Amino acid sequence: MQNSAIGVTAYDWVPPFAQGQVRDLRVRWALEEAGLAYRPIILEQGSQRSAENIARQPFGQVPAMEIDGQTMFESGAIVWRIAEASDGLLPSDRHRRDLALSWVFASLNTVEPPIAALVDLDFFARDADAAAKLRAGAIESVSKRLGQLQAALGDRDGLLGDFSVADLMMTAVLRIPRHTDILQNFPALDAYVARHTARPAFRKALADQLAPFRDNAARYERAA
Amino acid sequence: MQNSAIGVTAYDWVPPFAQGQVRDLRVRWALEEAGLAYRPIILEQGSQRSAENIARQPFGQVPAMEIDGQTMFESGAIVWRIAEASDGLLPSDRHRRDLALSWVFASLNTVEPPIAALVDLDFFARDADAAAKLRAGAIESVSKRLGQLQAALGDRDGLLGDFSVADLMMTAVLRIPRHTDILQNFPALDAYVARHTARPAFRKALADQLAPFRDNAARYERAA
Repeated sequence: MQNSAIGVTAYDWVPPFAQGQVRDLRVRWALEEAGLAYRPIILEQGSQRSAENIARQPFGQVPAMEIDGQTMFESGAIVWRIAEASDGLLPSDRHRRDLALSWVFASLNTVEPPIAALVDLDFFARDADAAAKLRAGAIESVSKRLGQLQAALGDRDGLLGDFSVADLMMTAVLRIPRHTDILQNFPALDAYVARHTARPAFRKALADQLAPFRDNAARYERAA
Repeated sequence: MQNSAIGVTAYDWVPPFAQGQVRDLRVRWALEEAGLAYRPIILEQGSQRSAENIARQPFGQVPAMEIDGQTMFESGAIVWRIAEASDGLLPSDRHRRDLALSWVFASLNTVEPPIAALVDLDFFARDADAAAKLRAGAIESVSKRLGQLQAALGDRDGLLGDFSVADLMMTAVLRIPRHTDILQNFPALDAYVARHTARPAFRKALADQLAPFRDNAARYERAA
């Protein structure tokens, strides 16, 4: 393990449906793109609700980032902070920087909410019949946003043209409904996600998130 | 109307349940706190989906902000941009600035999603019986987040101590479920919202959002 000034919290294991989805992935990806070394701070399942973790992440989640001896939280905030410190993730002119910020917030606050509602119905609803009755409406809400996003992307490789933090965050969000085939209805977005998740920095970040899950699976499965 | 360099899009009318909730309110509030003059760009209902508006707001919504002849969108991005240009909304030291950014994203991506899910069930579900069956779970999800937020606030006036952009955004989000009495279960948050919505900048922003709704109500109600 590197003795790096940057630390990122992550889990030692999560259930299979969440593997590759935990939000430290996008932070790891941004750090890889930026060429910044970091030290994973691995939390055992359950310890995310400890006083120690609540002190760095008030909602008992991951990720939080330790940087220069201080802590910040929320993957959106952390990724933006990394982008500001990087040459490759953020355009230098003011207008394009403002647009990148617009798209980072759009990823998390306009595109993700209907996707999160669909995931809630599919994985967490307590009444399966009720969830089934609301599912068509949820799919329609996601499809509306994806149609608007695909139109905005047009035939560009990235939302600002060249790859930027906007694409990193939007790709991370578009990976969330991977339990469905909804993205196949939007071929330009499907290709967009494939193109960006093929980046070496993404592959490295994903492998690094998954490694402890593999190492710890037997222990958690015995406990279940 | 002022001939200001900053323009903010807003609607000429929305239905009563949305009045005081449209997301230009938080942008107007931030501009008032920052002492920056702006020019409302008022969109007739329906014209948010025009090519002209899609060019500045890819999802056909408000707000967008015109600044220095360029456009940006998403209330989170716009409010952060205004805060960066302001002395009163953002602490100057790096660590507290990072924490403010963490809280702005937490407002929109951790606290708002369960609230938005509740609003969806209460106002937009197509099957009222199914929505009713999922409502207890939705209330529980909101309550969990509000409990964590109240614990994080502790006995401070604002999330960073003094008022900052973090409180502006969190207050805006906590106002969303005002059709319920859920906030009354969290007295410190209830007082937090009351304290911040009493600020003159908020009152001015709210009055300015509501004025065209009043002026145009008769026309839209005749058309309904």
